[in-house]
Amino acid sequence: DQKQATMDVDDPYGNEPLRHPVLKVNSLKPFNAEPPVELLSENYITPNEIFFKRNHLPVPEVDPKTYRLQVMGEGLKSIQLTLDDLKTKFPKHTITATLQCAGNRRSEMNAVRQVKGLNWGMAAIGNATWRGVKLSDVLKYAGLPENTHAKHVQFEGLDKDLTGIPYGASISIRKALAKDGDVLLAYEMNGEDLSRDHGFPLRVIVPGVVGARNVKWLSKIIVSKEESQSHWQVNDYKGFSPSVDWDTVDFSTAPAIQELPIQSAITTPCNNDYISADNEEITVKGYAWSGGGQEVIRVDVSLDGGKTWKVADLTGEKQDAGQAWAWKLWQLTMPLPKGQKNLEIICKAVDNNYNVQPDTVAPIWNLRGVLNNSWSRVKITIKPNSG
Amino acid sequence: DQKQATMDVDDPYGNEPLRHPVLKVNSLKPFNAEPPVELLSENYITPNEIFFKRNHLPVPEVDPKTYRLQVMGEGLKSIQLTLDDLKTKFPKHTITATLQCAGNRRSEMNAVRQVKGLNWGMAAIGNATWRGVKLSDVLKYAGLPENTHAKHVQFEGLDKDLTGIPYGASISIRKALAKDGDVLLAYEMNGEDLSRDHGFPLRVIVPGVVGARNVKWLSKIIVSKEESQSHWQVNDYKGFSPSVDWDTVDFSTAPAIQELPIQSAITTPCNNDYISADNEEITVKGYAWSGGGQEVIRVDVSLDGGKTWKVADLTGEKQDAGQAWAWKLWQLTMPLPKGQKNLEIICKAVDNNYNVQPDTVAPIWNLRGVLNNSWSRVKITIKPNSG
Ligand SMILES: [Mo]
Ligand SMILES: [Mo]
Repeated sequence: DQKQATMDVDDPYGNEPLRHPVLKVNSLKPFNAEPPVELLSENYITPNEIFFKRNHLPVPEVDPKTYRLQVMGEGLKSIQLTLDDLKTKFPKHTITATLQCAGNRRSEMNAVRQVKGLNWGMAAIGNATWRGVKLSDVLKYAGLPENTHAKHVQFEGLDKDLTGIPYGASISIRKALAKDGDVLLAYEMNGEDLSRDHGFPLRVIVPGVVGARNVKWLSKIIVSKEESQSHWQVNDYKGFSPSVDWDTVDFSTAPAIQELPIQSAITTPCNNDYISADNEEITVKGYAWSGGGQEVIRVDVSLDGGKTWKVADLTGEKQDAGQAWAWKLWQLTMPLPKGQKNLEIICKAVDNNYNVQPDTVAPIWNLRGVLNNSWSRVKITIKPNSG
Repeated sequence: DQKQATMDVDDPYGNEPLRHPVLKVNSLKPFNAEPPVELLSENYITPNEIFFKRNHLPVPEVDPKTYRLQVMGEGLKSIQLTLDDLKTKFPKHTITATLQCAGNRRSEMNAVRQVKGLNWGMAAIGNATWRGVKLSDVLKYAGLPENTHAKHVQFEGLDKDLTGIPYGASISIRKALAKDGDVLLAYEMNGEDLSRDHGFPLRVIVPGVVGARNVKWLSKIIVSKEESQSHWQVNDYKGFSPSVDWDTVDFSTAPAIQELPIQSAITTPCNNDYISADNEEITVKGYAWSGGGQEVIRVDVSLDGGKTWKVADLTGEKQDAGQAWAWKLWQLTMPLPKGQKNLEIICKAVDNNYNVQPDTVAPIWNLRGVLNNSWSRVKITIKPNSG
């Protein structure tokens, strides 16, 4: 990456990388941005430059020559690995996996009632090919016993707050060790070294699991009986009933978000678009994805606010159910309904567990504005015939 | 079981067991029945006599002395096991798991538009403690290689149609062999030998998976590269878009139902019940469950048709996420709203993947009336004060 033109040594955000100008910035410090949603469904593999960026803290600058990954904890020898160790001592693995921010589509929750969090549209999601080594291989190399009593694998990043506390998160040891769990320590994204914004030189890829556990700039792996005690694990990234507000919330009552529920959204047309009544047809496009390796098996599209539905055409690669880490793109071309001034276009997806998206936002509203997987709705106006 | 009083040798249904009179019969031949829903939430473990019965064919009468289980297929020696073999050669395992029929709550779909299938209420679900041996142990005993190329494990029952074709189904080999998959060949239900209606002397218990794959009166296990070609695997028990009707349906386009989506229902009060305005409080009860070993983490209850929600109290045993096979019962006591004539009571559950139930039935309507996991809704009338 290029450096920003101005560097300010007193500003913790004075050494951030340059970003692509097309990104829509939700927050500059820390940097959080998403691409225009129409671009998302143009490529099955999201180009690195426009892949959403969700940073919690300033981007660290890491020297790959002096970089060390520490691996330690419950029943392990503490070891340190260089980047070269990682790239030469372990089998390489490549997976195509979708990452989604827990706050994707938060703006639609904000429209119901104000929540606390960045005002993400529906593009805080992307699909990439990740290359690296298996976390399970590294844990075995560090001596993790077959019948470990550990329950969690904690991760720490090199990104730190002003008091020196790093970003942290954990996943279950079940996911970390599952033969078909495919958790990677990744050093490449779409055939290139990770960019600084995406975690150079090493990040965790936990396919099927919320972005927040895919720790970037990875510095430490700690096998433990306990979950990470990081703020972002215990006091954030959890779902609550719509009845819970900031006066009554008890974060200990909900589990940390890990695998994400079934999701889909309409990327084309955009809300409030106009279409001419001269058109014979209308084409609707979008993405669909489910967490936990569940495969999207169907996307239904409605042009009449959910009264009738048609089945969209899905594209994507074949991945085994249980390891279906990548999204599917979908599209559907339908006759443009005659004699109507407006259309409410809706999509909803189904995964191979036959989980479906809920109809509306309000009943899944939560104070942090996470986990919005309600039907995606777009209203468009039909302009009268030119003739 | 006792025999029915009348036996008719010309009737394939002439040798059915006696059933508990409290059961509500949806079909007599084959026998399909569910308990009154109010009874369901009285016991965390559903008593055997009232556990829903879903038979596809006449109940076979099996002599346990001459009974043999055949195990065969892809890379296996073909073997036969007696009941005694099963009970003495393998470690015993016990799990508490909920079984649900794919058609549970079908009557609510019928209310939207007529479907094809038995008119189940919301009690085609039950929770029991099952004891038996692990399918994976039996497959290893029969010589299944570590790196099998097989993809499915097929099951056949001793229940047959008039042409001699047995009931059949299959599950993925992934589920069959998963360390935490807990698939049992069960000979006991709640501490008793299986009853004839529940599959005496041996049935499959596939926890987290639709009832239809939990084959009763098990005669054959076939490891295969192919799914079962049984009618019930390939041309039934699948979900479709509401737009698909019997003229357009192509069963090859949808996967066989296996793990079931998040579910909950209100068991008390019943629809159209009256409650006196003299009551200070109202208590709502029900069950909640999710397939695939997902744990129910929350149930929200509304008394105002979904405008506001309160969180119910859950009861049940602690099972690990990923192996949370058993339902949770829930209840909530709330002040009875003043000055209202009617209440629309709703419940909706959330599992640890934060999957939720959809708001309404029509958008998940399908021609076979399966997979109804929409919000459970009960309307009650408040009778004016006696004073
Ligand atoms: Mo996130
Ligand atoms: Mo069923």
